[in-house]
Amino acid sequence: MEAVVYRGARTLRIESRDADPPGPGQVAIEVAYTGICGTDLHIYRGDLDARVGTEAVIGHEMSGRVAAVGEGVAGWSAGRAVTVMPTRSCTRCAACLRGHYHICHALDFLGIDSPGAMQSTWNVPANLVFPLPASLPLKHAALVEPVAVAVHDVRRARVGTGERVVVVGGGPVGLLIAMLCSARAARVLLVEPNPFRRAVAEQAGIEAVDPQATDVVALVNRRTATAGADVAFEVSGSAGGLETAVDVLTTRGRLVMVAIHPQPRPVDLHRFFWRELELFGARLYRRDDVAEAIRLIETGAIPAERLISQTLPVQDVDAAFAALEKGGDVMKVLLDWHGGARDAGVGR
Amino acid sequence: MEAVVYRGARTLRIESRDADPPGPGQVAIEVAYTGICGTDLHIYRGDLDARVGTEAVIGHEMSGRVAAVGEGVAGWSAGRAVTVMPTRSCTRCAACLRGHYHICHALDFLGIDSPGAMQSTWNVPANLVFPLPASLPLKHAALVEPVAVAVHDVRRARVGTGERVVVVGGGPVGLLIAMLCSARAARVLLVEPNPFRRAVAEQAGIEAVDPQATDVVALVNRRTATAGADVAFEVSGSAGGLETAVDVLTTRGRLVMVAIHPQPRPVDLHRFFWRELELFGARLYRRDDVAEAIRLIETGAIPAERLISQTLPVQDVDAAFAALEKGGDVMKVLLDWHGGARDAGVGR
Repeated sequence: MEAVVYRGARTLRIESRDADPPGPGQVAIEVAYTGICGTDLHIYRGDLDARVGTEAVIGHEMSGRVAAVGEGVAGWSAGRAVTVMPTRSCTRCAACLRGHYHICHALDFLGIDSPGAMQSTWNVPANLVFPLPASLPLKHAALVEPVAVAVHDVRRARVGTGERVVVVGGGPVGLLIAMLCSARAARVLLVEPNPFRRAVAEQAGIEAVDPQATDVVALVNRRTATAGADVAFEVSGSAGGLETAVDVLTTRGRLVMVAIHPQPRPVDLHRFFWRELELFGARLYRRDDVAEAIRLIETGAIPAERLISQTLPVQDVDAAFAALEKGGDVMKVLLDWHGGARDAGVGR
Repeated sequence: MEAVVYRGARTLRIESRDADPPGPGQVAIEVAYTGICGTDLHIYRGDLDARVGTEAVIGHEMSGRVAAVGEGVAGWSAGRAVTVMPTRSCTRCAACLRGHYHICHALDFLGIDSPGAMQSTWNVPANLVFPLPASLPLKHAALVEPVAVAVHDVRRARVGTGERVVVVGGGPVGLLIAMLCSARAARVLLVEPNPFRRAVAEQAGIEAVDPQATDVVALVNRRTATAGADVAFEVSGSAGGLETAVDVLTTRGRLVMVAIHPQPRPVDLHRFFWRELELFGARLYRRDDVAEAIRLIETGAIPAERLISQTLPVQDVDAAFAALEKGGDVMKVLLDWHGGARDAGVGR
């Protein structure tokens, strides 16, 4: 088997290894596609060396087919199309005991804390494997993980019909959130400075504005007779984006914190008090979010094809990371482990 | 009739005036007791001149008896014990139209935006008048408004049985929140530097710690096997208090923002993301909060007597404000309009 191994900042090596058979309780998956996430880019830059080390197989967005099963695993047959929820909970910490297993205090994030999906054969715990509908192309299914993130974020906000939603930040997750809210018949405005990302959004029927050219708060106030937006998603990670997300909200408006703000940020808490605003942190996804993500991609509610900017053979992994790092005209980049051949089984 | 009139910073005058009869839709109330609130103290100091002016009858915590009714008002008879919800909504703004009438964008706050309860006879809209049970002493009923604030704050947090609650700030509202959470069988810790206020809390069975002597976050972590508190109330208005309220929370913990933070404060948003924390602004109260406050005082769930530090005749209004401004050994101070004579009717 082959694996993309992170060997320190900006160094990825494709290495040949002997494939271990799946252990007890594990499923061996022949990986078809691996997506590259913003977190993978952070690892690539060396930002997470303390956590990841310098001999890690990274990657956590994927699709593939069951190759074999380990001892004690039933219900899976070879060739079955699957994806993986790459988060393994300890079941014993304070978060798990309260049912918040998805943000377990000792979470094992596959592809960060333990070997990930950038390998041709991946052994994973059977309870993290999700079956895919036969009609769902594996290429599209590689988006299940980021779509599950967006499903979780939107669920946290309880977005309803006709509500005004402002999504601040139009990368893959922001765009997916916008699409999901739109599918819930909300009125969505995406705020994104990158013109390529705005164009992708507009092509998918999402209104997108440039915060450097438009006073977003004034625009929303104008459209709502000064009431403001019902829901805002902070997906930008920037101080200005945060300020927009707070200032745009109506009385009892809900702000969902999707982005990572490493440093404390000044927040207008008086506005939270005065308008009884609500803030919800949202991280990762739960099992039902993954199931819903599969359904949304299968039904076409999420137009997967629009979100995939490039699909490159795994041999071009350096070019794939370079494309993401350059930014600009890029949304989601996939690595293809078998030249698309593994999609043949689904009749495309 | 007599009225306490705010005539500019630190100047209150007791003035005699002709009593206007109640207008259409109004009830005239003979005021028995008026409580003094932190907001009244801000007005007294001149902080709210732009909003209040310098000829205002202030005060919004009170109890009294119906004296007369205006045209079109039915269902009230003279002598009926009552209190007033001092917030009048416009019914037409974006907040009112969504049912958030209590934080109406054009809210008329009686005692701030229009004449208040520091007058011997007060004409108020009939729909803001609440009947009091005959068994409830009018002196205690003067606490209904601050208790309603606390009821609303606790409702926003959905505090449940056995939950760990940390209340940061032990003034009247903080102490009331602690008492209400305790009455809901939560495990409550009050954080307050003032030793008198801690003593009042301890006498009411609330555990209180001095944040200058105790590492509150370490204490809560020790008691919860590092899990943290389920709910925190920020009632201090201080940067340090806010930090404690955020740092003390468990995964999915709820923070209720009760205090006013006039300036933006640095907030650890990464912790909100990582633990999926939730923040709820909480301001004023709704009609059901007022009704619940009346019930809680009547049943003794809120020990009103413990909260009333002093009851002074209205002639001593300057001394009453001075006592509050000095701080230290004081919780709630009431003005008595009739030497307690109006409580006679309830058989005390």
